[in-house]
Amino acid sequence: MTQTRDFSVGPWHELAPGVRMQPLFGDAAMLNLIELEPGSGVGVHSHDHEQLGLVLDGVLVLTIDGVEHHLPAGHGFQISGGVPHAARPEGGLCRVLDVFAPIREDYRERVGG
Amino acid sequence: MTQTRDFSVGPWHELAPGVRMQPLFGDAAMLNLIELEPGSGVGVHSHDHEQLGLVLDGVLVLTIDGVEHHLPAGHGFQISGGVPHAARPEGGLCRVLDVFAPIREDYRERVGG
Repeated sequence: MTQTRDFSVGPWHELAPGVRMQPLFGDAAMLNLIELEPGSGVGVHSHDHEQLGLVLDGVLVLTIDGVEHHLPAGHGFQISGGVPHAARPEGGLCRVLDVFAPIREDYRERVGG
Repeated sequence: MTQTRDFSVGPWHELAPGVRMQPLFGDAAMLNLIELEPGSGVGVHSHDHEQLGLVLDGVLVLTIDGVEHHLPAGHGFQISGGVPHAARPEGGLCRVLDVFAPIREDYRERVGG
C-alpha cells in the first residue's frame, strides 16, 4: 500500500470542541494532524496505543503522568501505551502531528474510513 | 516510558552525504527528523518497516515503486513494508518527519542509542 495526502485540503474531523484532526491510516501505525484552538484541550485519558508526536506550530502543554511539559514548535514527545496524559494549547492555535502505533480503530470508525 | 525532545538542539547524525537525521525511539514506533540538502538524496531501497511521514519544509520527491510523487510541505505519505522507494529534495533544503514501525534497530546502532 502507498498513500500520499495533502493535509491542506482536509477534511477535518472534530475530536473535541475546538480540537480537529486529519488522520492518515497505515498498516502498523498512523499519522494524525491535530489543530487545537485557544482555550480547547483534551482531558486526561489513556489508551493501549503508543503515541508520539511533533509540535508544528504554537505551544503544546502536554501533561504526562501528572507532569506538565511545555513544548514549543520543533519539540517531539513519546508516550508509552497505558500512560495517562492530557493536552492543551498555550496561547494561540497549536498544530501537532500525532503518531499512533498500532492504529486507532476508534478514529477509523469516527471518520468512517 | 515518556520522552520529550527539542529537535532544534541536535545532535544530527549523517544518514547519507547531505542527509542528516535525528531519531526519537519509542516502543513500537519511532520518529526521525530528516534534513536533505540540495543535490542530496537516498537511493532506491526497501525495508520490512512501514514508513510514514510529513513534509515540513521544501519539496520532497518520493519515488515509490517506480512512481514519482512531488510532495510540498504539508503533504503526508505512507509506504507499506517491503515497498521500494527513494527520496530527494526538489530545489532547496527539505525537512521531513519520518515515522517507522517497528523501530529501526539499524538506526539505533548507528547513533549508539
